Amino acid sequence: MLYIIGLGLGDEKDITLRGLEAVRKCEKVYMEAYTSLLSFGLSTDGISTLEDLYGKPITVADREMVEEKADEILSTARTSDVAFLVVGDPFGATTHTDLVVRAKALGIEVKVVHNASVMNAIGICGLQLYRYGETVSIPFFTDTWRPDSFYQKIQKNVELGLHTLCLLDIRVKEPSWESLSRGKKKYEPPRYMTVNTAIEQLLEVEEKLGGSAYNEESSCVGFARIGSEDQKIVAGTMKELLEVDFGAPLHCLVIVGNVHPVEEEMLGFYKIRRGTKGEKDNCNA
Amino acid sequence: MLYIIGLGLGDEKDITLRGLEAVRKCEKVYMEAYTSLLSFGLSTDGISTLEDLYGKPITVADREMVEEKADEILSTARTSDVAFLVVGDPFGATTHTDLVVRAKALGIEVKVVHNASVMNAIGICGLQLYRYGETVSIPFFTDTWRPDSFYQKIQKNVELGLHTLCLLDIRVKEPSWESLSRGKKKYEPPRYMTVNTAIEQLLEVEEKLGGSAYNEESSCVGFARIGSEDQKIVAGTMKELLEVDFGAPLHCLVIVGNVHPVEEEMLGFYKIRRGTKGEKDNCNA
Repeated sequence: MLYIIGLGLGDEKDITLRGLEAVRKCEKVYMEAYTSLLSFGLSTDGISTLEDLYGKPITVADREMVEEKADEILSTARTSDVAFLVVGDPFGATTHTDLVVRAKALGIEVKVVHNASVMNAIGICGLQLYRYGETVSIPFFTDTWRPDSFYQKIQKNVELGLHTLCLLDIRVKEPSWESLSRGKKKYEPPRYMTVNTAIEQLLEVEEKLGGSAYNEESSCVGFARIGSEDQKIVAGTMKELLEVDFGAPLHCLVIVGNVHPVEEEMLGFYKIRRGTKGEKDNCNA
Repeated sequence: MLYIIGLGLGDEKDITLRGLEAVRKCEKVYMEAYTSLLSFGLSTDGISTLEDLYGKPITVADREMVEEKADEILSTARTSDVAFLVVGDPFGATTHTDLVVRAKALGIEVKVVHNASVMNAIGICGLQLYRYGETVSIPFFTDTWRPDSFYQKIQKNVELGLHTLCLLDIRVKEPSWESLSRGKKKYEPPRYMTVNTAIEQLLEVEEKLGGSAYNEESSCVGFARIGSEDQKIVAGTMKELLEVDFGAPLHCLVIVGNVHPVEEEMLGFYKIRRGTKGEKDNCNA
């Protein structure tokens, strides 16, 4: 049996009782490391906290390892209970779908333990989840690679009066150029896009394409570490949010569509208070 | 302090450790009863299961009560810790937003404990969450009230190649016509829309409006009791799903947009196998 267990967004306490029960009875426990161990508070210490809670060792599996060792993971799951732990909900990322598809194709039983993901936790800002359009991803621009396929999607959502969730790029275990040219694997330090960088890139693309999908005065909500004790949620214009220091990753950004009165009222609690220097602590919710 | 705690989708084991810790330290515990106690396995017995787990009594609060007693709930939260338990994630429904807005306006601290909701748990069928357009609600048609505002939204999603989540109507504690005319409160038995009824209504509206948003051959996924041990997930055309008995509530329906190869492969595991009588047991995932 292969258990795919969502850990939720904050820390080790966000696992469900169902998830904890499952992981405790598994013989082998893997944990995906390709999204956001850091934001999950999982340094080397973090892993031991989880290991203490579960009462067993965890093999941290990065993307390469999941791809390389999928056979090993699956062959273990054929004869015993294996847990694969995922930050957030199991189906936030395509990679987990791949693992499930392979398991099912081999006739291995798969059980999913759901949890919160950024896709529903953003509901906390008061914008109704059913009023979001297509989600977009904002990749880090480089000197030579500045893709803008998200722009048209945002424009569609804006036309329809819908909110847009922007997922921001995460670069973990990217091989360095130097290492690629030398044929030895060495990795760049992890990078997580901030709300500020995302807005800069968004405004650059608007300027280039000129479709009036949004501008500096467009209403947005910036999120950092959503679901954690120290989450920070600030509502304001793009221009205002450019000045806000959201702190440690992970960040995400919502571009606000048409708002209903109850959405407006709730957003109000997260608004930057004008007349104060910089943002106030708007992070409690 | 007011804790708004998501219980997840299945049963009492779907609460998170964080949520359990919070509810155990609260002096007063309310639980919303206006979505789906039934599907949550919460009959009178169910409540005692929760009460045993939490070690304290729970006041089940229907919509009327939350509206009428909000003052009482909030004044208790001003001086002590109060838990408000919600099936799924706290921000699936507007009503909870109202309560949070009122609490914040009174200066009461609010903490949210997230959990899985139908909005992210549908990811289990393999259709990527970021490829959904606006969510629609399908209300029960009556002889005189057959609203079709969902149609245009589905049509937009179809045009954009996006998937559409259809949330299906729940009627709990509806005053009966008889009781309204007699001035005494009596309630209709609860009603939960099935996937089958939803599809019948959808096809009726397509026939009426003729916009070719979808037809009998459109690819869909029907879900029942998602997140529960006995969940049922079946992929097929509208026509095929009309013949499937999904069993007890809650149900929801996804109208499939353009699919990527990995989505297609995953959906395949849930497809009705042709040549067998009716559907096979496609509910394990």
